[in-house]
Amino acid sequence: MTQEWTVEKTGFDTADIELHGSKYLLGNGFMGYRGTMEEYTAEQLVALNLAGFFDLARGSNWRESVNAPNPLYTAVSVNGKELNLSRIAPVFHKQTLDIKTGIHKRETVFPAGEVNITVKAERFVSKARENILALKYSVSADKNVDIVIKTGTDKNIWNISGNHLNYTDETARGDFSELTAESVQLKKPLKVYEKICGLENIVNVGLLHTASVALKANEEFTFTKFGGVYHGDGLENSDADFLRAVNFGYDNLKDEHIAAWDAIWENSDVVIEGDEEACAALRYSIYHLCSIAPRNTDKCGIPARGLSGQVYKGAAFWDTEMFMLPFFRFTDADVARNLLKYRINTLAGAERKAKEFGFEGAFFAWESQETGDDACTLFNVTDVFTNRPLRTYFKDKQIHVSADIVFALWDYCITTGDFVLLADGGLKLIYECIRFFYTYASFKPHKDRYELLDVVGPDEYHERVNNNAFTNAMVKRAADIFILALEKVKTDYPESLENLGENLDWAYDFAKKLYVPAPDERGIIEQFDGYFNLEDVTPETLKTRELKENEYWGCHGLASQTRTLKQADVIMLLSVLKSDYGREIKKANWDFYEPYTEHGSSLSACAYAIVAAEIGYTDWAYKYFMKTACVDLKGDSKQYLGSLYIGGTHPAANGGAWNTAIFGFAGVSFANDRLDISPRLPENWKSMSFKLNLRGERLEIRVDAKGAEIKGAAKTKITVYGKEYKK
Amino acid sequence: MTQEWTVEKTGFDTADIELHGSKYLLGNGFMGYRGTMEEYTAEQLVALNLAGFFDLARGSNWRESVNAPNPLYTAVSVNGKELNLSRIAPVFHKQTLDIKTGIHKRETVFPAGEVNITVKAERFVSKARENILALKYSVSADKNVDIVIKTGTDKNIWNISGNHLNYTDETARGDFSELTAESVQLKKPLKVYEKICGLENIVNVGLLHTASVALKANEEFTFTKFGGVYHGDGLENSDADFLRAVNFGYDNLKDEHIAAWDAIWENSDVVIEGDEEACAALRYSIYHLCSIAPRNTDKCGIPARGLSGQVYKGAAFWDTEMFMLPFFRFTDADVARNLLKYRINTLAGAERKAKEFGFEGAFFAWESQETGDDACTLFNVTDVFTNRPLRTYFKDKQIHVSADIVFALWDYCITTGDFVLLADGGLKLIYECIRFFYTYASFKPHKDRYELLDVVGPDEYHERVNNNAFTNAMVKRAADIFILALEKVKTDYPESLENLGENLDWAYDFAKKLYVPAPDERGIIEQFDGYFNLEDVTPETLKTRELKENEYWGCHGLASQTRTLKQADVIMLLSVLKSDYGREIKKANWDFYEPYTEHGSSLSACAYAIVAAEIGYTDWAYKYFMKTACVDLKGDSKQYLGSLYIGGTHPAANGGAWNTAIFGFAGVSFANDRLDISPRLPENWKSMSFKLNLRGERLEIRVDAKGAEIKGAAKTKITVYGKEYKK
Repeated sequence: MTQEWTVEKTGFDTADIELHGSKYLLGNGFMGYRGTMEEYTAEQLVALNLAGFFDLARGSNWRESVNAPNPLYTAVSVNGKELNLSRIAPVFHKQTLDIKTGIHKRETVFPAGEVNITVKAERFVSKARENILALKYSVSADKNVDIVIKTGTDKNIWNISGNHLNYTDETARGDFSELTAESVQLKKPLKVYEKICGLENIVNVGLLHTASVALKANEEFTFTKFGGVYHGDGLENSDADFLRAVNFGYDNLKDEHIAAWDAIWENSDVVIEGDEEACAALRYSIYHLCSIAPRNTDKCGIPARGLSGQVYKGAAFWDTEMFMLPFFRFTDADVARNLLKYRINTLAGAERKAKEFGFEGAFFAWESQETGDDACTLFNVTDVFTNRPLRTYFKDKQIHVSADIVFALWDYCITTGDFVLLADGGLKLIYECIRFFYTYASFKPHKDRYELLDVVGPDEYHERVNNNAFTNAMVKRAADIFILALEKVKTDYPESLENLGENLDWAYDFAKKLYVPAPDERGIIEQFDGYFNLEDVTPETLKTRELKENEYWGCHGLASQTRTLKQADVIMLLSVLKSDYGREIKKANWDFYEPYTEHGSSLSACAYAIVAAEIGYTDWAYKYFMKTACVDLKGDSKQYLGSLYIGGTHPAANGGAWNTAIFGFAGVSFANDRLDISPRLPENWKSMSFKLNLRGERLEIRVDAKGAEIKGAAKTKITVYGKEYKK
Repeated sequence: MTQEWTVEKTGFDTADIELHGSKYLLGNGFMGYRGTMEEYTAEQLVALNLAGFFDLARGSNWRESVNAPNPLYTAVSVNGKELNLSRIAPVFHKQTLDIKTGIHKRETVFPAGEVNITVKAERFVSKARENILALKYSVSADKNVDIVIKTGTDKNIWNISGNHLNYTDETARGDFSELTAESVQLKKPLKVYEKICGLENIVNVGLLHTASVALKANEEFTFTKFGGVYHGDGLENSDADFLRAVNFGYDNLKDEHIAAWDAIWENSDVVIEGDEEACAALRYSIYHLCSIAPRNTDKCGIPARGLSGQVYKGAAFWDTEMFMLPFFRFTDADVARNLLKYRINTLAGAERKAKEFGFEGAFFAWESQETGDDACTLFNVTDVFTNRPLRTYFKDKQIHVSADIVFALWDYCITTGDFVLLADGGLKLIYECIRFFYTYASFKPHKDRYELLDVVGPDEYHERVNNNAFTNAMVKRAADIFILALEKVKTDYPESLENLGENLDWAYDFAKKLYVPAPDERGIIEQFDGYFNLEDVTPETLKTRELKENEYWGCHGLASQTRTLKQADVIMLLSVLKSDYGREIKKANWDFYEPYTEHGSSLSACAYAIVAAEIGYTDWAYKYFMKTACVDLKGDSKQYLGSLYIGGTHPAANGGAWNTAIFGFAGVSFANDRLDISPRLPENWKSMSFKLNLRGERLEIRVDAKGAEIKGAAKTKITVYGKEYKK
């Protein structure tokens, strides 16, 4: 199914339409274009999903990312019958995604009475010009036949909650069309251009061009088309920009696009020798990360389902900081900086949220859109028994998100050496987050410590718990980071200190006295106060207790009063703050928590994989690595939360796959200005090669069972398995 | 239906069996005997409910009060057919309870073929001898007829969760029987004696005596019987004690019993002139309070459903302290002292509970049995949609119970002048409660205040709220009381200080800095942080949203995310700490909260009534007073919580009725050593007369529209409507 650089399927099953839309996704950080057929419409979940463009759907209070009309829409009819793959069983069908070049192809042979008609299409979303997408479309037949080609910009596209756009102008002139729209509530303008080359005798109806073509037997008829999608700053010169692209021509655009992908792979590729399947899955994960990374803007984050649609409202979660940022900070610091700047730019929203809930400082959105105000509602799940909305506490109690951002920001500075970011709003962000935690915390005088009560940790099946180990440890780390960052700025950028309060004694006190749950005598860290007292049952048992499909196990559901957890929580902690905990502690917790973990989130398996690799559970590590790396290839992730659709791509898992490969199997860690590499490869992996950018140096690393070879490390101090590496 | 001193019903409806069991209850604080017919058994909910005797039911983990076998069981058969009211429609039937004397009567005419058989029975649970109950049973017929009388001790009695007893010995000798049993888990012994007088030719089968009697037309055949029930200390001389009672004879026992009730009414009666119905309902409430008060023991509290059965496990709740104690401390200080000593005696259980949940000090049981360990489970309600137990937070979050006890204890001291109780364990109890609150509280350094987070207030529909106004205010009051009590003990009983910690600065700091939510600019106190943000709907609207009968509105149910509340919460606060809040504040809150209040608890209406009386809403006050006073007469209270049966008597409402009459309508308040009486009687009440015991003085008070007359107040300073009363 997957070879080294291609994802491909021969044959067709209507059941795959939804999955393939995500699996064969094209994207360039500005937009995502689902892996649908050119003749598909809303019914088959066609979407051109826009990054950072949010608004209400008409008549709804559901704010989500906006899908643009589809400028690549093209369908062929024979004798009045449309050749639509979703409705006609093909004679032959093949869909291909080349992840090296970001090019999507389809080839379909349709039966049309006595004639077989072959449609071939190739398309890409330009990696070099973020507003541009292009399509080459060919039709042939085994007999002479007259066909009608209908092509243009299709407004009938997938929308989860309804239409987001009012169309203010629609113009079609010959082989060109232009659509102007504005979003429903905020009236943000959007322009979609479309241009066809190589099609004649066009009749225009609305935004659709129709042309009859007399196909000669076994002679291929080909035309190309170009789409241009513009909003925000891009609108200023959109006419000229689109024209330039069209004039540049399909082949030139394609070359330029491939070159851009080549440049990305140059820094990002990971080669696994001895395990083609793992190599392909990892590369596929990297492909997705690079397809959705905001390369030219610091105004948007990465949505939890990438650019595969509007699921989770197109919002960014802690996923970005904890699962994706490691990849970017080591392979593309500019993207990492953009993502962190996005958080800095949305600090005001986080401050509003803190205030709304009665706190000071910055409480970052659980679901962050363009302003940083929280798109998350207080009712995220519908009860399958009553069809009533369930009060969930993701928004108001999952406070760890602010600590995760601080952690990622500091790690970025450490890894890249770019401490200017601290002066550029970073320290202020950290300060506000710590201020938030300080005002959220409860000081317990009789214990002389701060506690974090009434929170939700990563394991959302247990809401409103006290002293969640992950949360407390991450907040403690964040508080320590504040002090480090403060000292750094005092020394290097003293002029940036003015925004902070006069007296910071409280922050030192907080960092010193914040309680972090310690391992017990067995070495096990209790996930939260009282967790050990909960009913001792595993997900398998809970499954047998289900009364209805898609029951939500959180809230008051099946898991809530048991030890069963949705996803890695303590193990997540051990995978993130890896140097704070020894191997024995990791082993004790892995053994304890693994049986209770449902892995009901795609964020779970990679944490287990990383820790498993570290403690020598290589088979487990491999199993969880492949689960993570293949989640979008196999599409076997959870599709519903209660009655809420949550399908799409899983960039956090994509990032998690890379993290497992690099931090788990290659055993990379960077602390105290020292890079350590302690490879623990799966048995069948002969070697793994990858690049890391570290403080301006580009290291080429090859690891195998015996150790590591590193090139390009002039300044970086390196150890392998803890011993100094001789360059 | 109710006259001044009698509750009575002529006619019979099987639907009344359950209600009448509670409504016609007899009791003496040691036991309650349900208002069932002599021939009834388990099926008709016969119960001889024992105060302070708890154990598991066989094969269950549900710990509840134990029902003893029924020594008054008696049934008549004619031609082999038993005359059982529950199965034979009577020619005539009348049931009567004389609340002045605590005597129950029934008269039933049964059709038996050609003959009408009349059964008359009179019984009482001796108010003078707590182990004794007695029955006089008469049968007559309008024609000669042979009947068979079956009488004895019946083990087939009502048990909610199964049998609690193992029977170790059963002996019947002629007209006497004796049963020895022990409770299932703790093997606590129980003895039940039974003796018949006036029945001959007895044949014994097990514990049942059978005798044939040839009735002559219109000649009444009468016999008497005696029951004796013993456990605990009473077992020591039980043989002799029972024999003494039997030898004393039915009429003497009855006289002695009536005299005991007379003595109680002498101090407790309230006479309302001009409203017979209200007067009867209030007397009926007082009857219940006096029937269940533990007069001879400080080892048990008053169960939430009195001694009417095992509902709520026979456990004592905050109901005792907040709703019943005012009546006792003003009319029978010995009972009040017993009830408070019960809490002091169970302090160790409260300390265990605090420790279990990670705190210091004393966290009193939500449902308290004989040890003070909490009988409340974490799962109190069954979801009607899934039949799964719902996690409720009554047990672990309803912390106000410890403050309520402190409050009641201090009020007892103030009212009775018995400050010795402080030295007798009272101060230690208060100290441990404050210690609990201090360790429960969250200090918020940036606000320089303590907050009480994650609690449940009286309104159980809103669980896990922050800074519940009632809770915070009561805890604040408790903290203030600790300081007052400490000073008192320092001065008067310095030798009792040894049990407290060395340094008590923390307690002063806590009392000073505990946050109490204040009225907003409208004068409204927010029930808890964020209450005003909840959906603005009333119980009437929620009712229309119900999908199933007996849906529980708390937990995640219909009310939980709305303003609808189960019962008085802020209004409860205003009724309890009445001198802390002015009339305007009371009015603003009454107006605001009344429409949102479901009154889903019998504790609710009286709080609204008291405050309504005070702010001049006399019609409302009267309506809620009657609702409270009539709850057990009408039986229109909630019978189910989810699928949990919660029927029975409502002693808290009984107490609430008295509180409304005395504190509301008579406007009695006692603060700063001054009794104020500010009557605000309903229009049709000509006068109300009652007695209050105040620091050893017995005041006879008569209030009317114009003011008050008080007799017996030699030392007490008295004002009427705030002006000095001229004696």
